[in-house]
Amino acid sequence: MDLSSFLTSLLTSFVIFLFLMLLFTWLSRKQGNAVIYYPNRILKSMDPWEGGSRTRNPFAWIREAISSSEQDIISMSGVDSAVYLVFLNTAMRIFVSSGVVLLPLLLPIAATDRSSKSTGASTSNGTFKQLDNLSMGHVGEKSTRLWAYVVAEYWVSLVTYLLLWKAYKHVSALRASALMSPQVRSEQFAVLVRDIPPPSQGQSRKEQVDSFFTDIYPRTYYRSMVITDNKKVNEIWEEIQSFKKKLARAQVVYTNTGTRPKNKTGFLGLFGERVDSIEYYTEKVNELTPKLEEEQKLTLREKQQCSSVVFFNNRVSAACAAQSVHATMVDTWTVMAAPEPRQLIWPNLPMNFYKRQVRQYIVYFVVALTILFYMIPIGFVSAVTTLSNLEKYLPFLKPVVEQNVVKTVLEAYLPQLALMIFLALLPKFLLMLSKAEGLPCESHAVRAASGKYFYFTILNVFIGVTIGSTLFDTFKDIEKNPDSIVSVLARSLPSQATFFLTYVALKFFAGYGLELARIVPLIVFHLKKKYLCKTEDEIREAWTPGDLGYSTRVPNDMLILTIVLCYSVIAPIMIPFGAVYFALGWLILRNQVLKVYVPSYESYGRMWPHIQARVLAALFLYQLTMLGYFILKKFKSAAVLIPPLILTLIFGFVCSHKFYGFFKDPALQVACRELKDNPNMEVIFESYIPPSLVVEKLPDEDQLDDAISRVSRSVSLI
Amino acid sequence: MDLSSFLTSLLTSFVIFLFLMLLFTWLSRKQGNAVIYYPNRILKSMDPWEGGSRTRNPFAWIREAISSSEQDIISMSGVDSAVYLVFLNTAMRIFVSSGVVLLPLLLPIAATDRSSKSTGASTSNGTFKQLDNLSMGHVGEKSTRLWAYVVAEYWVSLVTYLLLWKAYKHVSALRASALMSPQVRSEQFAVLVRDIPPPSQGQSRKEQVDSFFTDIYPRTYYRSMVITDNKKVNEIWEEIQSFKKKLARAQVVYTNTGTRPKNKTGFLGLFGERVDSIEYYTEKVNELTPKLEEEQKLTLREKQQCSSVVFFNNRVSAACAAQSVHATMVDTWTVMAAPEPRQLIWPNLPMNFYKRQVRQYIVYFVVALTILFYMIPIGFVSAVTTLSNLEKYLPFLKPVVEQNVVKTVLEAYLPQLALMIFLALLPKFLLMLSKAEGLPCESHAVRAASGKYFYFTILNVFIGVTIGSTLFDTFKDIEKNPDSIVSVLARSLPSQATFFLTYVALKFFAGYGLELARIVPLIVFHLKKKYLCKTEDEIREAWTPGDLGYSTRVPNDMLILTIVLCYSVIAPIMIPFGAVYFALGWLILRNQVLKVYVPSYESYGRMWPHIQARVLAALFLYQLTMLGYFILKKFKSAAVLIPPLILTLIFGFVCSHKFYGFFKDPALQVACRELKDNPNMEVIFESYIPPSLVVEKLPDEDQLDDAISRVSRSVSLI
Repeated sequence: MDLSSFLTSLLTSFVIFLFLMLLFTWLSRKQGNAVIYYPNRILKSMDPWEGGSRTRNPFAWIREAISSSEQDIISMSGVDSAVYLVFLNTAMRIFVSSGVVLLPLLLPIAATDRSSKSTGASTSNGTFKQLDNLSMGHVGEKSTRLWAYVVAEYWVSLVTYLLLWKAYKHVSALRASALMSPQVRSEQFAVLVRDIPPPSQGQSRKEQVDSFFTDIYPRTYYRSMVITDNKKVNEIWEEIQSFKKKLARAQVVYTNTGTRPKNKTGFLGLFGERVDSIEYYTEKVNELTPKLEEEQKLTLREKQQCSSVVFFNNRVSAACAAQSVHATMVDTWTVMAAPEPRQLIWPNLPMNFYKRQVRQYIVYFVVALTILFYMIPIGFVSAVTTLSNLEKYLPFLKPVVEQNVVKTVLEAYLPQLALMIFLALLPKFLLMLSKAEGLPCESHAVRAASGKYFYFTILNVFIGVTIGSTLFDTFKDIEKNPDSIVSVLARSLPSQATFFLTYVALKFFAGYGLELARIVPLIVFHLKKKYLCKTEDEIREAWTPGDLGYSTRVPNDMLILTIVLCYSVIAPIMIPFGAVYFALGWLILRNQVLKVYVPSYESYGRMWPHIQARVLAALFLYQLTMLGYFILKKFKSAAVLIPPLILTLIFGFVCSHKFYGFFKDPALQVACRELKDNPNMEVIFESYIPPSLVVEKLPDEDQLDDAISRVSRSVSLI
Repeated sequence: MDLSSFLTSLLTSFVIFLFLMLLFTWLSRKQGNAVIYYPNRILKSMDPWEGGSRTRNPFAWIREAISSSEQDIISMSGVDSAVYLVFLNTAMRIFVSSGVVLLPLLLPIAATDRSSKSTGASTSNGTFKQLDNLSMGHVGEKSTRLWAYVVAEYWVSLVTYLLLWKAYKHVSALRASALMSPQVRSEQFAVLVRDIPPPSQGQSRKEQVDSFFTDIYPRTYYRSMVITDNKKVNEIWEEIQSFKKKLARAQVVYTNTGTRPKNKTGFLGLFGERVDSIEYYTEKVNELTPKLEEEQKLTLREKQQCSSVVFFNNRVSAACAAQSVHATMVDTWTVMAAPEPRQLIWPNLPMNFYKRQVRQYIVYFVVALTILFYMIPIGFVSAVTTLSNLEKYLPFLKPVVEQNVVKTVLEAYLPQLALMIFLALLPKFLLMLSKAEGLPCESHAVRAASGKYFYFTILNVFIGVTIGSTLFDTFKDIEKNPDSIVSVLARSLPSQATFFLTYVALKFFAGYGLELARIVPLIVFHLKKKYLCKTEDEIREAWTPGDLGYSTRVPNDMLILTIVLCYSVIAPIMIPFGAVYFALGWLILRNQVLKVYVPSYESYGRMWPHIQARVLAALFLYQLTMLGYFILKKFKSAAVLIPPLILTLIFGFVCSHKFYGFFKDPALQVACRELKDNPNMEVIFESYIPPSLVVEKLPDEDQLDDAISRVSRSVSLI
């Protein structure tokens, strides 16, 4: 790739970005699209264009995004979103501060180096000389100019420590002020108890739990909610909900058209007797409701499991209890702070400790296999889906496939298709695996999945692309001498600089453009609205935005961070790209968080320690690669690059000791703040009852509405 | 060594043991020796010979030791002693159960093996054929008879798991019942707070601590005691105590002889003016007392440190607080369960977390150096203390040293003397190092020192002796291939069997004989009583027994356990010796614990997890050596010996998860038991005041006595 084609590709990306931004400006001003561009505001019953979004200025949203305070973000989207923005902001600052020093320092040093040996290393695979001249590869071996690069590495490391430290402090304060808030939040009054031993003869679980906790907390214990096996009751409840939806739909059709809709009772509505829909569904709902009530009673009475949510009448007691050893056998009565009701993963709660442990190791093993050998299943799928096999198993496709054009396209794209499907399914697969570990809550599972995806991207994208096709050749070297991975990485990195430059640029221009323009959700919504949705609820479901999806978002950002950090000294020209990526990300995500996404849970920033650990891991990898690269450059004082490695470890230890405890357990200093008003314990207790167990005494219209609105909130519970 | 000389050495040891036992029977019946053989009973104001110890039957003490219950031991000597006895008992059971199966199984198999290749390996350095024939070395390579040894290894491992599991459960129950006791124990109402941040302007430490805890525990917080820097006040207080002792002594001399004793005021009473002792000391005490009072006030007001003991008015609150995160910055306000008052190491308390951490790593480093290179300082000392050097530095010794006999003896013994002094000082050195880590309490420091000494004995005695002089030759092999340490150990083990047999035998016959007979304390006491002691207090100090000294006792037992375990399959004849060692130890220690030793602290069995971990480490080493030995024997299915290694790790993990938490933190289930009567909080608070800070309002005789009797209790505090 030469300079002009590189610039062309950059320019193309930028033009796409501009186009998408203008598209966004145009589309977002239309009334009918408000639910796509301002769903968070609409759900909070606010005016979508409040604050002048609808002016003719296409950059109004930028002003809004910048001018809104952190407090606005927290009130609109919770602490987790604010913490994610702190991460983007910190990454941007790291690169800006690095760039300010590194670009004026290193570029002239590299460009003016005239040592003859420098021609060997090339920053690009092709003949992209102009960029080469600016990179560390252009500086000769053993040159004293390398000292400038040492200084640069120290500078980047120090800036990272400093900004991470400030960010951790800031996030800690955000978490503290959210937890100190005088508002009553159910989860602050509850703890989750797991591994309850079998009750003694003639004692129910509930009595057992009550007597255990009344003994210890005679004054502050409120009551308990024993976790039940809800599989059966959920099934019935879901069936009722689906019939109720169909009923509502049929009623709308009847109102609009005047003819009573009919449907068939068999499979998928395609077979069986033809009946009047309204009558049929009403009958079904009336038939199932007593069944549900009976099953509810049965579940509550007989299907109690060895786990429970326990409520206290003040926050300090709950926070204390969440951190204390309760029984002499520590693998029984394990207690932890309760997650929010909507986060609880009910089926995981009764799993005992050893089962969780075994499952965890199995999951780790499966993930390791997935990461290391992810090409194998793809290869297998491609092999099965070759044209000849397709023809064999699905003979009716033969006439289509035999055509030349179709054949060429299919042959070229089938393997890629398999890869794309696999990559798209991977985050879901990892999330499923994380839940299978037996984690008690959604946010924890998302963190675990995000961690797994991070390893996947670093290993397969970054290291994979860098070492590239030479991987299998160098595999034997690495096996013989495991340390050589560092030098292999150091040798291969410079030649991939242009690839990653274009990768980062594409990522921020096209990626963030699409993020902002929301073209896909827009099209999907309009199609659904036109052809599928009948009732108001259905339309609302069609536009309800997701949450930010940290489990893929964070690892993707981490990948960019790792790439830019690793190149920061070798090819400092990468730094501005990194800075723009995070700056643009911060800006656009601010907009999205304020107006679009609705978080599906709130973990008060528990994502941060996870992010911080991975930033440090990236920094460590960078320092390690630099050490390898300096050794390759035959730099005699390469040992001077060892202290940063040790410093990173010490920094990580100090941070984790100073801050992590408070992210793990609720600090009492925070829990002891006064509440605005006395907590209504009955409301707190009821918030933990899953919707399928709510007893509807008077199924009138109001309550029905209420019940349905709870569906979306509690989908994750079922 | 041939059989007869081996038996002779055994017999000699046994005769010594019998002699010491008879000596004990004879000496312990004399009235004047009661304070040496029954001090624990005397200190508890019991009749020393209660229960018939003074009968003519020389074995009466055995009956007594066996018939007394665990409850007796706990009431006489505390939970820690009972736990130590559980350890001895468990070790004995492990060896008895192993021996019952292994001896009848393995000895005939080895003895009847006629394969020709077996002559190569020898169990002893000499020509001790009879023992050789009974050991695994006698079984040929690749023989199918080796399967019996595999079964034996599995059996030993399973028996160890089973008995350790039972022991852990038992110890856990002992700890629980001690902590549940309805008696008021100060430490259950207190927590230790460290790393308190600087107070805000115009606030004293005390106010800061009080306001912090009152906010969190408005109903259960009682009061706080800020840790002060007591260096100065302790000095003055000790000076007063020493003058008071001298005064008491002078008064006794005056009463007995009728002449007023005189002394010189200068250095060591050798120089300076001659004065009347009673007057002089009285004057000194009167002079220092106001100074002490002033310093006490100053200390309490101005020398408050960043640490505090905090009191609660019930046990559950204290237990909860001890386990909870209090501040958002987790490295401030760190809270832990308070140790007993007599255990607190005051100067360590204000040390902050990072300082402790750094100190810990430095100490680990120093200990590693000590263990690995312990020969170097000894060599250095020997070099300095050679005769020629001595003559040079201490020329007045020349005439003595020049004599031939003296010269020979000195030349032969000076290095050994250096070694002996070094080995005798090592435990004290390790304890000092452990305290320098910044540990808050005595019992923790003892555990840490015991762990360090364990590594020392295993590495230097067991592995050192086994590999012996070949160590430096094989050092290069080991460096090249670290795994080879196992095979080196496996190769060398069999040849050292007889050495260790005699070592174990000597250890239990001579060691336990001396333990029982207490000849050294007896002689020291009688000498002191005759020539040094004048007052009652001085005599009492002369006979006051120490505690069990876990920091050397446990590692020594561990060494024997490791040796016997490692030989259990290779030379099963070792097992009975191990069983006898622990049986005898159990018996004699029961006697000592009931009648002699007075524990200097009570940690409610916190030693156990430490012991259990090291027993498992010994088992792991044994399994590893066995694997190496089987590979040496060219046993094809040696892989069958890998599962026990994994099983040991899993067993350790499960035990630590199931039990350890309760040894680390007080379980609430235990703390919530009812008390016999309402705790007198003022008494609890006062028990934590160090003696040098106690304000003596009326220095009359009663209070003085009271103050002195507290000295011995609180020596460790100063």
